[in-house]
Amino acid sequence: MSTLMSRRDLEFLLYEWLEVDSLTSRARFADHSRETFDAVMDLSADIAQKCFAPVNKKGDANPPYVDATGQVVLPSEIGDGLAQFRRAGLLAGSFDEALGGMQLPTVVNRAAMTWFQAANAAMSSYYFLTAANANLLARFGTAEQIDSWVRPMLDGRFTGTMCLSEPQAGSSLADITTKAVAQADGTYRVTGTKMWISGGDHELTDNIVHLVLAKVAGGGSGVKGISLFIVPKYLTDGTRNDVALVGLNHKMGHRATTNALLNFGDGTYTPTADSGAVGYLVGTEHRGLAYMFHMMNEARIGVGLMATALGYAGYLASLEYARTRVQGRSIAGEDSAPVAIIEHADVKRMLLAQKSYVEGALALGLYCSKLVDEAETTTGPERERANLLLDILTPITKSWPSQWCLEANNLAIQVHGGYGYTTEFDVEQYYRDNRLNPIHEGTHGIQGLDLLGRKVTMHDGAGLTLLRDTIDDTIRRARTTPALATYADELATTLDQLVTVTARIWSAQDRAASLANASIYLEAAGHIVIAWIWLDQLLCVGDLDGAFYDGKRSAAQYFFRYELPRVAPQLTLLAQLDRTTLDTDPTWL
Amino acid sequence: MSTLMSRRDLEFLLYEWLEVDSLTSRARFADHSRETFDAVMDLSADIAQKCFAPVNKKGDANPPYVDATGQVVLPSEIGDGLAQFRRAGLLAGSFDEALGGMQLPTVVNRAAMTWFQAANAAMSSYYFLTAANANLLARFGTAEQIDSWVRPMLDGRFTGTMCLSEPQAGSSLADITTKAVAQADGTYRVTGTKMWISGGDHELTDNIVHLVLAKVAGGGSGVKGISLFIVPKYLTDGTRNDVALVGLNHKMGHRATTNALLNFGDGTYTPTADSGAVGYLVGTEHRGLAYMFHMMNEARIGVGLMATALGYAGYLASLEYARTRVQGRSIAGEDSAPVAIIEHADVKRMLLAQKSYVEGALALGLYCSKLVDEAETTTGPERERANLLLDILTPITKSWPSQWCLEANNLAIQVHGGYGYTTEFDVEQYYRDNRLNPIHEGTHGIQGLDLLGRKVTMHDGAGLTLLRDTIDDTIRRARTTPALATYADELATTLDQLVTVTARIWSAQDRAASLANASIYLEAAGHIVIAWIWLDQLLCVGDLDGAFYDGKRSAAQYFFRYELPRVAPQLTLLAQLDRTTLDTDPTWL
Repeated sequence: MSTLMSRRDLEFLLYEWLEVDSLTSRARFADHSRETFDAVMDLSADIAQKCFAPVNKKGDANPPYVDATGQVVLPSEIGDGLAQFRRAGLLAGSFDEALGGMQLPTVVNRAAMTWFQAANAAMSSYYFLTAANANLLARFGTAEQIDSWVRPMLDGRFTGTMCLSEPQAGSSLADITTKAVAQADGTYRVTGTKMWISGGDHELTDNIVHLVLAKVAGGGSGVKGISLFIVPKYLTDGTRNDVALVGLNHKMGHRATTNALLNFGDGTYTPTADSGAVGYLVGTEHRGLAYMFHMMNEARIGVGLMATALGYAGYLASLEYARTRVQGRSIAGEDSAPVAIIEHADVKRMLLAQKSYVEGALALGLYCSKLVDEAETTTGPERERANLLLDILTPITKSWPSQWCLEANNLAIQVHGGYGYTTEFDVEQYYRDNRLNPIHEGTHGIQGLDLLGRKVTMHDGAGLTLLRDTIDDTIRRARTTPALATYADELATTLDQLVTVTARIWSAQDRAASLANASIYLEAAGHIVIAWIWLDQLLCVGDLDGAFYDGKRSAAQYFFRYELPRVAPQLTLLAQLDRTTLDTDPTWL
Repeated sequence: MSTLMSRRDLEFLLYEWLEVDSLTSRARFADHSRETFDAVMDLSADIAQKCFAPVNKKGDANPPYVDATGQVVLPSEIGDGLAQFRRAGLLAGSFDEALGGMQLPTVVNRAAMTWFQAANAAMSSYYFLTAANANLLARFGTAEQIDSWVRPMLDGRFTGTMCLSEPQAGSSLADITTKAVAQADGTYRVTGTKMWISGGDHELTDNIVHLVLAKVAGGGSGVKGISLFIVPKYLTDGTRNDVALVGLNHKMGHRATTNALLNFGDGTYTPTADSGAVGYLVGTEHRGLAYMFHMMNEARIGVGLMATALGYAGYLASLEYARTRVQGRSIAGEDSAPVAIIEHADVKRMLLAQKSYVEGALALGLYCSKLVDEAETTTGPERERANLLLDILTPITKSWPSQWCLEANNLAIQVHGGYGYTTEFDVEQYYRDNRLNPIHEGTHGIQGLDLLGRKVTMHDGAGLTLLRDTIDDTIRRARTTPALATYADELATTLDQLVTVTARIWSAQDRAASLANASIYLEAAGHIVIAWIWLDQLLCVGDLDGAFYDGKRSAAQYFFRYELPRVAPQLTLLAQLDRTTLDTDPTWL
């Protein structure tokens, strides 16, 4: 097995580029130091490699099933590996010390977690969802809710889920029909069916804490009427709540994560049908979606990093393969001895492409994670800035890695040739696992609408202005460095075009036309952001010597020569407010 | 299950666009008519839908394994379905009547076969390889070899394989080490190991006819020393030949096709080890690769059409899903009732993209198939023209669908949302099955080198000149049609750039630099060719009324607005003879 992540790159990004050790000057992180960060990284790499990676193929080949007693069965190694994770206290990495957490910066925690995502993405999802769930409740739950649900989740006894989708309502949350009815004792009774629930049922832990979106009477139509409820599998007194497993989905990848269809309150576990599952309101009624989006935004950064980790593991696997596989000759000397395939230009192209995608995506994911820390440890304009930048970058940090680190996995297979298509190697599984990421936590299309339809227009466009100013700052610094001036100019030109095109799109006074190519806008903006992230890395690299820094320069050069130019025709299309899709009658398809 | 292929589009391409009924004026096809062509299409669609499609998931879920007796076990339905195909005489569709064939035009036969490739790509591969093998032997084999091996293959009693790769020699055939030693009786003894042998072992038929590349003494180094041998699993007297199954590969997709590692002459089936498997020379010594390339070129068109058929089936599946799945509201009326997702611009974009890819790829595949008929039924300059055009188009018709119809499958999954990621729907399997196609029969990288390193330079560039003239003819005609003039201009500009860039690349006098971006060249040329194919279809569509023709116009518009513009930055990179990959030291990766 090749290395799963590059420790060197993680350290470059954290310490040389993002200078996260400076965060230890903040009160929240005062007990930390480079040493404690490194210890968490060591521990994570060690457990991921010893307990997660070896189970990756087994979990894939033996997906969960429901046995005769109705229980979900998973390979025992999954429970064992997760227990190691739990015992190391990693689940509570960035949580408050008061909750038993390590109070790590999010950026350090996320970086450490990439080892698990690379080692076994499906297995890591159980605790990633749990952490996101616990984080939501830690913020919006009552003290009693925190004691009952957050603490057991953080010490690994319970896991958590997020229950949004229903069979008839996936992306369209306004159409959910799950209902919650208030009871005299302050609890609610929840009735409905939820779908695509990752970690929705299993026997890995004592209990499962579902966070369920449901409508209460009087909430108004659409998303306004949605409230959020804690609906545990077992109540605090040990009674089985009426949450019934209807079935599991069988998936192309990410197979070791159970994905369940759940009935709430269908009478399976109560004497009378439709009396409802017991639920506890989170916060106040009708604010459910706002709470859930807090979790969703965090989860979206996490999805981007999962896609990145899978891309990274595939890159390193194909790199190792390319170094050792001997095949063909150099073009310059066709009569010479066969060479390692890494000598072939096209193989180097596929490796450079992967490197530019995965290192670019990792840098962006950690940059956004650091913004989470900034938002949490600052106040006033600094905090506002961090949140505004996070708002506009979240759809990109979710979708760009989901698209391009999947493409990295595609290239990793190609570097392996026929071997890459076999289950003997790891890359085909990375590719299948990674294909989930453009779908869940808001599809690519939804992220495009979020970026172009909301994020670039909200607060009178302040988000886009801030992003532009932030990128401009990098451009200004790069222009004073001769080796980077050309990149800086190219990025400046493209960025100006994006801003102009954005104004043009919204000047049309035709919302349908403006949003028709939102996905293309998302892709163009994503490439511009990653070009910026590469340029900013190069500022940090400077003229430092060594293969690692040469590699950064080469990957950035690849991105500026092969990737950024893809944006120009996309912006041209957007500037024309192209109506091809709008004008196509569905009957013509 | 949705329709697998569009009969309407096949008929448009065959009769309205390619006018294949005119082929019946040729002596070879004189017994045929539109009626016999339609009958083959009916039969193929019927057997594919009744006997192939229903086994697609089962074959995927139950891949071949080797039982305790050493025999390969497959679901019995696969043998049953293939028997239906055999009984219908479809295997010999385009073969000579003298061999029991139907003497169909290749273009009609290939069109009919897409039903099987769409219905069950893995299952169809057994007979596609057999047909290609039989075709090679029918051309280059002796009368006795034809009687012994071709006839039983064409009536379905035997299957055939092609054995090129070895564990240490995949793309690099110069490095094969399998040896053949001439015997006094005129036969040879073959010793060596062959890998990635599709259909390499099974019990579906009485015998398996392996076509094996091996080196005989005195053949010179590299590819020059390679000869071709028939090495059957069983000799004509029923004796087991020394061809031993070492193992099967387990693959991400295309799982119902056995993929074997075979030892030739390792002593498993002979009293003494290393005495060799009995082989019969095809043609003359040292010409093996030339014969094999005859089969390979045909197989490459077949791979392109398999990729196309999988893309097409995915397109139609996602189209049906999009028409029936209700989710979300129109942007214009957010308070209105939920709509079918086909109403959403982004879903239409994903459907139009798929349509432009799969219909473009199908048109190209059939165009090339018709060129095969032209080459076989004409003489002199006409034949030369057909062969020259085939030479230059083959790498594109193999690789372009392998790349873009895989992308179509990616989009088909995305249209389905979470459902597309589950095994409950068909599209995730199409995606996994299709991922094989950029790898086998010459990887994407190999096709790029073939196109830029051989095909555009051979015969003093006559192939590229002919392609340009052929495209120019379409452009000239389109310029006289107001609705098409803009497309014609855009295509003309891009085509001119391609020709200029090609000259620039080869003026560099540095073969390594010229070929460094051969894959990018392949992609750019592919998009230009498909744009041409779309424009040529539009000339045929004219201003005809009806949803079908409107669909053609929309898909072409999509291709010209969203796809062709991708080429400009690729050509810019190529014109610069970019050295990023060459200058990247492997240690920097």
